[in-house]
Amino acid sequence: MPKLSNLELIALADSFPYPTSSVYKIEASSLYHFTSHDLKATLGYLLPSVVDYFRDLKQSFVVSDAEQRVSIAPEFDTVEKRSKMMNDLALKWRIEKKFKVLEGWRSELYPIYYPSSELYFTFERSACPIFGFVTYGVHMTAYIPASDTRPLRIWVPRRSRTKSTYPSMLDNTVAGGIGYPYGVFDTLIKECGEEAGFDSELIKEKAKSVGNVSYYYVRTSSAGGESGFLQPEVQYCYDLEVTEDTPPPNPVDGEAEDFYLWDVDRVKEELAAGNYKPNTALVTIDFLVRHGVITPENESNYLEITSRMHRNLEHPLR
Amino acid sequence: MPKLSNLELIALADSFPYPTSSVYKIEASSLYHFTSHDLKATLGYLLPSVVDYFRDLKQSFVVSDAEQRVSIAPEFDTVEKRSKMMNDLALKWRIEKKFKVLEGWRSELYPIYYPSSELYFTFERSACPIFGFVTYGVHMTAYIPASDTRPLRIWVPRRSRTKSTYPSMLDNTVAGGIGYPYGVFDTLIKECGEEAGFDSELIKEKAKSVGNVSYYYVRTSSAGGESGFLQPEVQYCYDLEVTEDTPPPNPVDGEAEDFYLWDVDRVKEELAAGNYKPNTALVTIDFLVRHGVITPENESNYLEITSRMHRNLEHPLR
Repeated sequence: MPKLSNLELIALADSFPYPTSSVYKIEASSLYHFTSHDLKATLGYLLPSVVDYFRDLKQSFVVSDAEQRVSIAPEFDTVEKRSKMMNDLALKWRIEKKFKVLEGWRSELYPIYYPSSELYFTFERSACPIFGFVTYGVHMTAYIPASDTRPLRIWVPRRSRTKSTYPSMLDNTVAGGIGYPYGVFDTLIKECGEEAGFDSELIKEKAKSVGNVSYYYVRTSSAGGESGFLQPEVQYCYDLEVTEDTPPPNPVDGEAEDFYLWDVDRVKEELAAGNYKPNTALVTIDFLVRHGVITPENESNYLEITSRMHRNLEHPLR
Repeated sequence: MPKLSNLELIALADSFPYPTSSVYKIEASSLYHFTSHDLKATLGYLLPSVVDYFRDLKQSFVVSDAEQRVSIAPEFDTVEKRSKMMNDLALKWRIEKKFKVLEGWRSELYPIYYPSSELYFTFERSACPIFGFVTYGVHMTAYIPASDTRPLRIWVPRRSRTKSTYPSMLDNTVAGGIGYPYGVFDTLIKECGEEAGFDSELIKEKAKSVGNVSYYYVRTSSAGGESGFLQPEVQYCYDLEVTEDTPPPNPVDGEAEDFYLWDVDRVKEELAAGNYKPNTALVTIDFLVRHGVITPENESNYLEITSRMHRNLEHPLR
């Protein structure tokens, strides 16, 4: 397999075309906006194939073909009303087996925001891609800094071969979605314990908040379920500097099969070979940029990469 | 003076409205696109008051009011032809005293790119804001990490009171524009020597590339010259971790009046008091985000801040 450039890796995760591109007019201009009940904000984009499902739901939604828009009906004017209506619908679709992504039902609620920072409703995690809602997660990279005798090393897990999404692919040390009503750092501590057996005191003391990435993913078959659903995501990023003496991460809940402590050159090889899950490749590239491994001198696509890892998502955000 | 929030500080540097905002329709929709000779790329936005200057220059430019566009004439089809024509024009305008910004003539060439990463022409630095061209710089923050007994400290210079732009304001430890034909790291080493007396060996060994910021600045009177010119910028960011024993920075070329080693709380106070130059406040906030001082837990506008510090500029880039 030919090697993937860093820009090609980013493009696998940030795969929704930009409105300025010629591809956008072809691929994206047929999308419908899924909007708030006051029509003021687009909460996500709907594939044309999904729009027809809303035409018989006149109690809950207003479809406007002229405006390429499906909106929540105006009477759903509270968080409670919207949450109940939306989750009842997702459950109905699950029972009717309307969408393959709902076979991965999580019984986990994700927050949808509108206006920005304000909870608009909560919604079943597995159904979010049908609507193209923005979702949020935490990603942490545990690493041993370079010394005089050894290069930078990173703890890299391999996903379980039995996972329904991206089996056997490489991942960030710890990663997980932020479900309602958990906070960012609470989620990090929980995931660190479940996925890697990291002690919560270690995380509280040493995990460092270092920014976030954002990108607009178009789901492929390896994500499970239908291809083509839009999945804009924000990942809050943390670094955990460890030493040779820190107890190594170990798989607790079986999400990871094993953890490897790899030199940075091995990490770059595995990235270029396409062995990382697309969004964890992106988070790893962000780590390598922040740690001076990928620089303006050695990466000709530097600005396109850093810009696309911090994409301005056009929806209300957390 | 009331305290400025981090978002308000970012908005002082990223002050050009976003196309999705209602302000954009009022303030920005009258702008003209300054385009490449093939009409395919917008290299910058022109204020309506500037467009009339191009109407008598039919040898060099094509003005289309219907398209709100001024383009370089098609015959300027090489880097050399464009560079000569553009710089002759800037010099003519300087002699005719057409623009106050040209009083700050630098005799320093900046690269304009099109397509991205390809040099399209070089242009006098002081004239770039008239056309709204994207310009590039390096910013470095020298800091002493937190220890068990002391918080994180940052080396902060105060700009000379005699500077024409932002006199007496606070700045990043080292900052400078990237002129043609210098590279990013070469520029950093040069500026580190000139502005802070840092030894080039120290910079080569210890300065760490940590990413970049981008934002769309609308010039104010404190920038010198006319207000209102558009100035999209990219700054490549470097961190320099130093110790108590590292020779402190000292003003060599008189750009800085003095350097202070301030605890992070003092830096936050000076930011909130509006004492930083706008774009160096933005770079400092990026530093505080990367170093876990500003976090998703303590900053309610976190995602808007991080997104606007990494604005997707709609022009071809380096």
